[in-house]
Amino acid sequence: MKRIAVIGQSGEIPSEVRKIAEEVGAEIARRNAVLLTGGGSGVMEAASKGAKEAGGLVIGILAGDSTDVANDYLDVPITTGLHFDFRSLVLVHSSDALIMIRGGNGTLGELSAAYMNKKPVVIIETTGGWATKMKEVAYEGGYLDERRTVEIAFCDSAKVAVELAFKRIEEPLNEERNTGRIGD
Amino acid sequence: MKRIAVIGQSGEIPSEVRKIAEEVGAEIARRNAVLLTGGGSGVMEAASKGAKEAGGLVIGILAGDSTDVANDYLDVPITTGLHFDFRSLVLVHSSDALIMIRGGNGTLGELSAAYMNKKPVVIIETTGGWATKMKEVAYEGGYLDERRTVEIAFCDSAKVAVELAFKRIEEPLNEERNTGRIGD
Amino acid sequence: MKRIAVIGQSGEIPSEVRKIAEEVGAEIARRNAVLLTGGGSGVMEAASKGAKEAGGLVIGILAGDSTDVANDYLDVPITTGLHFDFRSLVLVHSSDALIMIRGGNGTLGELSAAYMNKKPVVIIETTGGWATKMKEVAYEGGYLDERRTVEIAFCDSAKVAVELAFKRIEEPLNEERNTGRIGD
Amino acid sequence: MKRIAVIGQSGEIPSEVRKIAEEVGAEIARRNAVLLTGGGSGVMEAASKGAKEAGGLVIGILAGDSTDVANDYLDVPITTGLHFDFRSLVLVHSSDALIMIRGGNGTLGELSAAYMNKKPVVIIETTGGWATKMKEVAYEGGYLDERRTVEIAFCDSAKVAVELAFKRIEEPLNEERNTGRIGD
Repeated sequence: MKRIAVIGQSGEIPSEVRKIAEEVGAEIARRNAVLLTGGGSGVMEAASKGAKEAGGLVIGILAGDSTDVANDYLDVPITTGLHFDFRSLVLVHSSDALIMIRGGNGTLGELSAAYMNKKPVVIIETTGGWATKMKEVAYEGGYLDERRTVEIAFCDSAKVAVELAFKRIEEPLNEERNTGRIGD
Repeated sequence: MKRIAVIGQSGEIPSEVRKIAEEVGAEIARRNAVLLTGGGSGVMEAASKGAKEAGGLVIGILAGDSTDVANDYLDVPITTGLHFDFRSLVLVHSSDALIMIRGGNGTLGELSAAYMNKKPVVIIETTGGWATKMKEVAYEGGYLDERRTVEIAFCDSAKVAVELAFKRIEEPLNEERNTGRIGD
Repeated sequence: MKRIAVIGQSGEIPSEVRKIAEEVGAEIARRNAVLLTGGGSGVMEAASKGAKEAGGLVIGILAGDSTDVANDYLDVPITTGLHFDFRSLVLVHSSDALIMIRGGNGTLGELSAAYMNKKPVVIIETTGGWATKMKEVAYEGGYLDERRTVEIAFCDSAKVAVELAFKRIEEPLNEERNTGRIGD
Repeated sequence: MKRIAVIGQSGEIPSEVRKIAEEVGAEIARRNAVLLTGGGSGVMEAASKGAKEAGGLVIGILAGDSTDVANDYLDVPITTGLHFDFRSLVLVHSSDALIMIRGGNGTLGELSAAYMNKKPVVIIETTGGWATKMKEVAYEGGYLDERRTVEIAFCDSAKVAVELAFKRIEEPLNEERNTGRIGD
């Protein structure tokens, strides 16, 4: 069972972004993958709702020990007992691929962690925030540094994002291009 | 959905212990709770098998990044990217109650973490290892120190263990007795 | 005793960047602060050398359990037992302020974690990598998202960087501007 | 520079235990090792005081982000941003050897983590709490399970404890006896 994480902005999000996140969640469920998120609001909640309503399994990797901040669509809250930033790393390590929608600094940190851990990431670049910024700023249009650890994919729809995420999981990492050390 | 963790010895375990762990897993599934374990062999595997065959949901909180060491009965491996000891803490924080079966030093550490985090623990005392030792050594027969944070329950069957675990989740913590500080 | 972290590129670095990092380390030591780094090579090693030769105290927050990858200038290696990404968070949480020199994706993740935890960061923007990129891409020239949690400072010399780091530690956070939630 | 951790009871401790902890700290400092503790009160504070007054270097590995709970004798607080139980693991991983004085459940968890990570531990068995209990309950008088990972040493004075800690660091692990897997 593939594990696809959806990362992105918490709190208030535009309705068109919410719709995209719901579609991503639903599509993940239709492909019989489990949806992982940080368990909270905004993009996380919308993706969870989409997956849940499509009959999928939804797991939230939460900060702290309480489920009070969990959204209403989780099958299982994993309350890590960790601060936000540490729990984001557990989320990244637990995913086979990640889809990024909009996002502030927390999402940027998750993207960085995914890249460090050679996890494929698909960014829906039309959704604003770092999802849009990253397209311009990435090295050679798809890397976070000169090590070219794993190429970030960009697209502009929920459907293509999920397709790409599944496709990327199957692709071998281009170890030849990755000439640097994992690290700093 | 309640989250019940089963902790205990990895590797080779006696067949009667395996049978008890399977029954515990099955009973957790029958009560529509999710089974959490460390995802590995021995007691973890037996409980996962029991839960899976009874139609339950099984999540493994694994050390490292690989699912190679995961047992065959996990619905979702949470590969934390953490060393064994750190991942055990994520397991404890993510559980509403824990059931302990046999167990070496790793299980002892999980028991200690559960107590620190005020999670109810039920020990099947007839299963050997620290499960048996602990009955004699605990303070006043049920505490890990003088803070009396949360009382450990002992029993000698799978069925009673699961019953007690669910019962303990509902009980209020006796905050009056807990006059000490969480810590060291 | 103030705790100043220096973050930046590991591995091979240009000699002018190495010189800047050494000066930063030396200046931190002269001001009787402790230098924290990730304990490795490149910028971390150069800063450690500078601090050590100026009579300072140097602590490395290392990934894993081995000191084999530690540079030669550490007084105390803190071998966290954690993967690179998790240990970077311990480094950030343990610092009163951070100075960023050059840097690839790992440094970007540390910058993101510093911002999430409201730690002041000073970037020496002339050193290449994300230190140079970030000046152009930051929100309003100094933030990592619209929450404006804590403003990133930019400068172009070692001396000014350390001065700014100390100054920023004393400044109150502008809580009024920070209208968002810590998180994602 | 060797790194010796002192673990043990927080909060109020008997005056004779406090005296022993101070002597342990002082002796560690006299041997030019760095003292690591959890940074808090009780045994941690007494050991820190002893080391500080003997001219040693004292580092506290603290839970959370605040130094408010730090004792007065730390040269450097490492504020891990982690909950008590996770930060105890960073402390254990960062030590070359540990000395245990008295102690409740938190100390028991640290002992368990040390054993899992094959760190030598010396217990001053006359100090009460788990330090006294453990002598009776350990497997073959010195192990925490049948894997016999690393033998726990017992003694009854500060001086001997520190001598033994240094001696144990130099000894090769008896890998032949350790036939089990690290884990659970």
